[in-house]
Amino acid sequence: MTKSWNRGAEQKRQRLAAARAQGLDKLVPAERAIDLLEAVLTPGDRLCVEGNNQKHADFLSACLAQVDPARVNGLHIVQSNLALPQHLDVFERGIAAKLDFCYSGEQGVRMARLINEGRIEVGAIHTYLELYSRYFVDLTPQVAFVAAQSADAEGNLYTGPNTEDTPAVVEGTAFKNGIVIAQVNEIVERVPRVDVPAGWVSFVVPSPKPHYIEPIFTRDPAQISEIQVLMAMMVIKGLYAPYEINRLNHGIGFDTAAIELILPTYAASLGLKDKICSYMTVNPCPTLIPAIEAGFVKGIHCAGSELGMERYIEERSDVFFNGPDGTMRSNRVFCQLAGHYVDLFIGSTLQIDLEGNSSTATLNRIAGFGGAPNFGSESRGRRHASPGWLKAGEESAASRMSAMPRGRKLVVQLVETFREKMQPTFVERLDAWQLQEDFDLDLPPVMIYGDDVTHIVTEEGIAHLHRCNTLAEREQAIRGVAGYTPVGLARDPLAVEALRRQGIIQRPEDLDIDPRLATRDLLAAKSIKDLVRWSGGLYDPPNRFRNW
Amino acid sequence: MTKSWNRGAEQKRQRLAAARAQGLDKLVPAERAIDLLEAVLTPGDRLCVEGNNQKHADFLSACLAQVDPARVNGLHIVQSNLALPQHLDVFERGIAAKLDFCYSGEQGVRMARLINEGRIEVGAIHTYLELYSRYFVDLTPQVAFVAAQSADAEGNLYTGPNTEDTPAVVEGTAFKNGIVIAQVNEIVERVPRVDVPAGWVSFVVPSPKPHYIEPIFTRDPAQISEIQVLMAMMVIKGLYAPYEINRLNHGIGFDTAAIELILPTYAASLGLKDKICSYMTVNPCPTLIPAIEAGFVKGIHCAGSELGMERYIEERSDVFFNGPDGTMRSNRVFCQLAGHYVDLFIGSTLQIDLEGNSSTATLNRIAGFGGAPNFGSESRGRRHASPGWLKAGEESAASRMSAMPRGRKLVVQLVETFREKMQPTFVERLDAWQLQEDFDLDLPPVMIYGDDVTHIVTEEGIAHLHRCNTLAEREQAIRGVAGYTPVGLARDPLAVEALRRQGIIQRPEDLDIDPRLATRDLLAAKSIKDLVRWSGGLYDPPNRFRNW
Repeated sequence: MTKSWNRGAEQKRQRLAAARAQGLDKLVPAERAIDLLEAVLTPGDRLCVEGNNQKHADFLSACLAQVDPARVNGLHIVQSNLALPQHLDVFERGIAAKLDFCYSGEQGVRMARLINEGRIEVGAIHTYLELYSRYFVDLTPQVAFVAAQSADAEGNLYTGPNTEDTPAVVEGTAFKNGIVIAQVNEIVERVPRVDVPAGWVSFVVPSPKPHYIEPIFTRDPAQISEIQVLMAMMVIKGLYAPYEINRLNHGIGFDTAAIELILPTYAASLGLKDKICSYMTVNPCPTLIPAIEAGFVKGIHCAGSELGMERYIEERSDVFFNGPDGTMRSNRVFCQLAGHYVDLFIGSTLQIDLEGNSSTATLNRIAGFGGAPNFGSESRGRRHASPGWLKAGEESAASRMSAMPRGRKLVVQLVETFREKMQPTFVERLDAWQLQEDFDLDLPPVMIYGDDVTHIVTEEGIAHLHRCNTLAEREQAIRGVAGYTPVGLARDPLAVEALRRQGIIQRPEDLDIDPRLATRDLLAAKSIKDLVRWSGGLYDPPNRFRNW
Repeated sequence: MTKSWNRGAEQKRQRLAAARAQGLDKLVPAERAIDLLEAVLTPGDRLCVEGNNQKHADFLSACLAQVDPARVNGLHIVQSNLALPQHLDVFERGIAAKLDFCYSGEQGVRMARLINEGRIEVGAIHTYLELYSRYFVDLTPQVAFVAAQSADAEGNLYTGPNTEDTPAVVEGTAFKNGIVIAQVNEIVERVPRVDVPAGWVSFVVPSPKPHYIEPIFTRDPAQISEIQVLMAMMVIKGLYAPYEINRLNHGIGFDTAAIELILPTYAASLGLKDKICSYMTVNPCPTLIPAIEAGFVKGIHCAGSELGMERYIEERSDVFFNGPDGTMRSNRVFCQLAGHYVDLFIGSTLQIDLEGNSSTATLNRIAGFGGAPNFGSESRGRRHASPGWLKAGEESAASRMSAMPRGRKLVVQLVETFREKMQPTFVERLDAWQLQEDFDLDLPPVMIYGDDVTHIVTEEGIAHLHRCNTLAEREQAIRGVAGYTPVGLARDPLAVEALRRQGIIQRPEDLDIDPRLATRDLLAAKSIKDLVRWSGGLYDPPNRFRNW
C-alpha cells in the first residue's frame, strides 16, 4: 500500500461533495447554513471561528450551536476572541470539546465554569500573534468561519474597514486544503475592493442581519478624571519628550485617551508638535481626532476599525491606510507586528506585583490578554535605532552587565494606584497564581513580564524600572509610586528617597509639573460631542455614546 | 486655506495621469518600462523594490538604473535583499540616495565602498519583520516594484510558489495611495490563483525574461563532513530528544542539513519518530526530502520556495501550504512569525564572542542578517507551553532570579570551532565592533544577542549557556566548547571541568555518543542524486547541482 500524501486534499473534495449532495453550491442561503455545517464538518475537526476584537462571524457561530451533536461533535475551536454566548453554547452541547484562544472578555466567568465542569479543555491562552502563528504550524484549521461586508457572485470578499484577522485566518485555512466559509452582510454585483480573492473561499452565506460588531475602542472624554490628566502630563513631559517618542502604540482606556486629548493643548504648549507621536499603531480611537486635526498624529496603522469613524477615516487618507476604494483596510497581524517594532507601548493593567509583572487576569474568570503582551514586550529582533530606543538601552541596568551595547523599547504601565471599588493595583501576589492553581495552568497568566517593563506611571509619579540594578531596588521603585496601597505604604522611605535623588523615581514637581494645572480644561475635547465637532461632523458616534 | 488631508491620493492621481499622458495603460509593454518609471516616480520618493531572499523584480530594477537622473533622483530605497549589481547602480548614478535594507550578501563589499564614498546613506540594517513593520509606520513606500509569475488582463497576480514578501510589500503600498508596479513572466487568460487582487496593482509589465530567482537553500549532501554528522548526532540526542523539540526552525547550511539527513537513520534508531521535528517553519530545503518521506517531518510552512522543489511540493500537499490550484503559497511574514513562536531555532554564524553574541558581519562588507535575529530571539510574547519550552525556562539562570516562572525558547548556535580558511569562530572581540566604527553605526551589528542563546554546539560538545549563573561562568562554558581556537585554549580547565560535572558542558561521551559512529553512512542521502531518488523523481535539481 502506498502512503497518501494528499489526504487533506481528498478530505476537502469529500467535504465539498457532501455539500453538493445537499444541493448546496458556493452561494448558500442563510436557511441552509446549518445543513452546510453538518455537511462539511466532521467530528474532531479543528475549526477557526473569526471572533476578532470587534467583528464576529456571529451568524455562523449561532448556526454551529444548532447542528446535531450526533453528527458534529468534539470540535477543536481556535478563535482569537470569544465574545458571544453562542461561542460557549457549542461546548455546553458537546459540539466542541477543545479550545485554543486569546481573549474571552465578558464570557470569562462562564468559561471558567465550563472548564471546571470539564466541558472545555483549554489548550492554551495565547497572544494574538502567537495564535495566528500556530495557524501555520500545529493549529491549522480544517474549516474556518469568517465575516465580511460583501461578496460578489464569484465569492470575492470585501471586508470593509474591519479587515482585522480575516487575512490570517483565510490564508492559514485555504492554503492547507481547508474550507473557508464566509458570512457576508450582502451580495453585490461588484465588491468595492477585493480583500480576499474568490478562489480562497469555499462558501458564502448571506447573513440575515449584519455581522456583530462592537465599538470597543470608544472612550467618552466626559469620563476622564483630573488624576488621569495629571498622569498624562507626566507621560508627555517625563517620557515622550526626553525619549523623543515619535512612533508608538497606545493601549485602550481612559488613561491613554487622556494623553491623546492633551496633545493639542499641553504637548503643543511644550513645543512638542512634530517631535512626538507622529506615527501610531492603534485602532482609530475617536479620542485621537483632535491630535490628528491639530497635525500631531500623522500616520496610523490600525488593527481594526471603530464604529462611527468610517467617514472620518475615509476623509483622512493621508493618516490612515485606505484602499483604492477609499475605505480603510485594517490588518491585525501587520498592526501588531508594526507595534512590536515602534519605540514605546503604553497601556494599563489591573494588577502589578513587586517585580513589575502585570496581569489582567482576576479570580473566577479566564480573560486572556489579546495584544498587550506582543506590543508590550521588548522587541529583540529589532536592529534599527532611534533616539529613545538608544537612550533607554544605555540607561538599562541590564546593559551595564554586558559589554555589548544595545537599544531598548519603552514599555510603560500607566495605572492609578487604586482601580474600581478601591481595589489596589499594586499587590504582593498576583491573582494569576491562584488562577494557575484553580485551572491547572502551566504558568501563572502574566500579561507583561516585569523585566520587559521600563516604566510605571501612577498619580504619585514615574518609576524608571529599567534603571534599577537589583530586584530589591526595583521593588522599592514600585512601592515608591504605589501611593496609599498596602504595597505603597510598606515602602522603605529612605530607599525611595535615594531612588528619587537618582531620578529613578520622579514626582510631578521633579518634572516641573504643577498638579493644580492638571484640570479637565487641558482636554482638547471634553465630550463625545466635542469630538464630533473637531471632526467637522465626520465622526458619527454610535447611539449609546450620544447624550445630546 | 484649508488643510488637505488627502495629498497622497492627489499625488497618486497625478502619477497615474502622468503615465496616461505617456500613453501608458495598466498593461505596460516592456520597452516602455523606463517611460513608466520616469512618469510615476518623483525625486525623493520612497521606493520599495522587491528583492526577496530568492525572487527579484530584476527587470524593473534594471530599468530603474536607466532612468534619467535629471528627472528621477534622490530616491529612498527600501528593500529587504540587495542581490544584483543594478540594485547598487542606482546609487552610483544618483538616482537613489538613501537605503533601508535587511541583507546584501554578495553586494556587501561594493555597498561598503559606496557608503564610504557618500553615495549611499544607510538608514538602518533591519531584520525582515522589522523592515516589513516599518512599511506600515514610517517607511511606507510611494511606489513599489514586485515580481510575479503571471497576471491576467485585469492585473490579478499569481506569484507561483515564491510568494515571499509580495503580500507585505503590496499591502503597505496599495493601502497608502502608493503605486504598485508588477513585473510578470507572462500574461495569461486566467491566473491559476489570485495572490494579489487586480485592484491593488497599478501597472503590470511583462518582463522580457522570467524574473531572477536563486536556489539559495540547496545544499549538496556530498559536501557534508563527518564532523557535521557528529554535531548533528549531539543536537538530536542532546537537545531535540530531552527537550522534545517537535516544532522548530532550521537555519540554512550544511550543519543543519546534516541534522535533516540523519533523522530517518540516527533519530529513527533512537525511537524519536513522531516525537521530534514534526512541524517546521523553513524553506523547502531539498535535504528535508528523506525526513519527509520517512514520515518524520509532517508539516512545513515556507518563507519562500526553492528551485527544483516545485513538483515535489505539489505532490506533498499534506506537508506544505498549497493553494486550491495545487502550487504552494509561501509567505515570509507568516513564516518568520510562526518561526518566532516555535520551540527551537538552530543556525550557524561566523563569529561568537565570550558572552555568546554572534554576528555574520565581517570586515569591509555590509552584509546584514535577514531572518536569524527574528527566529533566533526569545519570543517574549509567547504564552502557550510545550515541554521543551517549560524545561528550558525552569533551567534558566534568569528564572532563578525571579519569583515568576516562565518558559523559554531554545536558541542554538551550531558551529565548528574553525570555519573556512582556519578562521576561528570564537573570538574575544567581534568584527562587528570595527564595522560599527568604520561605518558610523549606532551599535555593533550583532545577529543574535548572547542572552537569547541557550546552547552552543561544536564538535567538542554542547554548552548549555542558559544554565550559567554569571557572565564569567558563561564565558568558561563557551571556552569549554571552543576547541583549539585561541578562545578555547585560554579556558580555565578546572572551571570547565566543574561545568561538565554540572552537565552545563556535555561531551559526546557524556551523551553516550561514540564519535566513531559519526560517519557519512548515517546520511539518508549522500548526494543530490540520492535526494532525487528519495523524492521518487519529483525533485528536479537545477543543473548546477547535477553532476551525473
